[in-house]
Amino acid sequence: MLRPPEHQVAGHRAAEGQVGPLVDGAGLFYKPLQGDDRGAHEVAFYSSFSSDPRVPPHVRAFFPGFHGTQLLPASDGSGPHPHLVLDDLAAGLRCPSVIDLKIGARTWYPSAPDDYFHKCLKKDRDSTSLALGFRVSGVRIHQGGDAGLWQPDRDAIRRFTAKDVRRTLRQFGSSNPASDSDPPDCAFASMVYGGSNGILAQLLELKAWFEDQTLFHFYSASVLMMYETKVVEAGRAGGGIRVRLVDFAHVMEGNGVIDHNFLGGLCSLIKFISEILTDPDECLAKPKKAQLNFEDGS
Amino acid sequence: MLRPPEHQVAGHRAAEGQVGPLVDGAGLFYKPLQGDDRGAHEVAFYSSFSSDPRVPPHVRAFFPGFHGTQLLPASDGSGPHPHLVLDDLAAGLRCPSVIDLKIGARTWYPSAPDDYFHKCLKKDRDSTSLALGFRVSGVRIHQGGDAGLWQPDRDAIRRFTAKDVRRTLRQFGSSNPASDSDPPDCAFASMVYGGSNGILAQLLELKAWFEDQTLFHFYSASVLMMYETKVVEAGRAGGGIRVRLVDFAHVMEGNGVIDHNFLGGLCSLIKFISEILTDPDECLAKPKKAQLNFEDGS
Repeated sequence: MLRPPEHQVAGHRAAEGQVGPLVDGAGLFYKPLQGDDRGAHEVAFYSSFSSDPRVPPHVRAFFPGFHGTQLLPASDGSGPHPHLVLDDLAAGLRCPSVIDLKIGARTWYPSAPDDYFHKCLKKDRDSTSLALGFRVSGVRIHQGGDAGLWQPDRDAIRRFTAKDVRRTLRQFGSSNPASDSDPPDCAFASMVYGGSNGILAQLLELKAWFEDQTLFHFYSASVLMMYETKVVEAGRAGGGIRVRLVDFAHVMEGNGVIDHNFLGGLCSLIKFISEILTDPDECLAKPKKAQLNFEDGS
Repeated sequence: MLRPPEHQVAGHRAAEGQVGPLVDGAGLFYKPLQGDDRGAHEVAFYSSFSSDPRVPPHVRAFFPGFHGTQLLPASDGSGPHPHLVLDDLAAGLRCPSVIDLKIGARTWYPSAPDDYFHKCLKKDRDSTSLALGFRVSGVRIHQGGDAGLWQPDRDAIRRFTAKDVRRTLRQFGSSNPASDSDPPDCAFASMVYGGSNGILAQLLELKAWFEDQTLFHFYSASVLMMYETKVVEAGRAGGGIRVRLVDFAHVMEGNGVIDHNFLGGLCSLIKFISEILTDPDECLAKPKKAQLNFEDGS
């Protein structure tokens, strides 16, 4: 029985009148191919990537497994539509907290057509992408059961400032609900972000690959971070803490150059998370500023 | 006796009718303040940076020492003009080979006025900045004495492709002249780029700082790499192999975020240099490509 995924936080959603992804509840995720060449582009990436012997297994593990394409009835009832068949990244998680972060100060690729370039550039400047090297695309955080669910809508997320992003990353590692008048308590930070299997360690592993790989440039791709809320709340091991990469409709050939745009954004995210771990108490404190005095240049 | 520096490879030059920097031959470099607010901006940066206790000494060593400003007769004879007083980075080098690399895929800062933004964006797209995360701003390489001097002019450098940049970086570590029909031999690569005091080691030290520092964002700044050609040619130690940072007219406050734009470009440069060290023979070989087939998306 195919159905829309419960835990999706970004991208097109399967709802009446809209084509969206489906899951089978047995571990597979079906992503409808986008109509323009983005769909074909994403299939080409998965085909190339999944068979490329230069991608080491520990890196491959960050990507959804690829199982070809399949014609399936579209979620909007419009008839058969080709779908990418991928691993369901949230499989086995009952109550996941999830953040989707679009990585890179620049979401347009060098050869992009003019209208796409202008559209992306505007979004990058209007969002935190330009300043931070990444932006939040979606977030869903459970705290203290369903009553504590925080899932801001797309418009709210679009308006996120650097301060909102900082707070959201802290909230993701906190036990008190986002609706609290108190700042995020970062009670889960060491469990979710820290440790040898935590998010920071996984991001650092990814970073090491991006410092070296010159095969692909990932424009507009996302890092997905998730964990099983109930397990983390209970302080038990095995919290399903996962970092994954998704959304490859704009991956380009690397032509022997590293993906400095993605890497820069990833390093910025790593710094944000490192600070939460080193300064869990300094919640929303003002960042330390350099004292450039541009008024008086003498 | 003030005179124009012999080894300058980029930026405004002191010549008749043009204001340019001067050196005193005793270790100081006088850089005329640019007339618009760039001059004041650069002074503000040097003042702030040189007194900021959060900058560790080993990082400070990558920057020219700052000795205030001074009114001096401009090099074009137009009368007294304020100059930045800085350490002469080429002091003590008799026959330096030098490369000036402008770091960052993006040379414009987020709050840049529209005309400046458009001018920079065009230059970034037309040069290798966008693709590689850096571009060559100037180069002067000595090989086999003055007969082997290679110093392409500004227009030639402006047209540099990714392949030209790759070749220039190899040439910088080679013993055969750029005019050779043979590709660069990379004979000096292990000495210039490798080793515990080589350029790669220095760049990695700089990288470690950029992964952490959130004080400054360095737009349009350059990494200068240089060595004493005669000493390296003779295979002797103490080849004056130096990495320095210059050009701070567009440094902005970091506001608690790392300089992901500079860091990305720096990592790209590091990868280029690492490849010269691991593959000195593979001169100008085609980069290994991913095999994305965007024609056939099935």
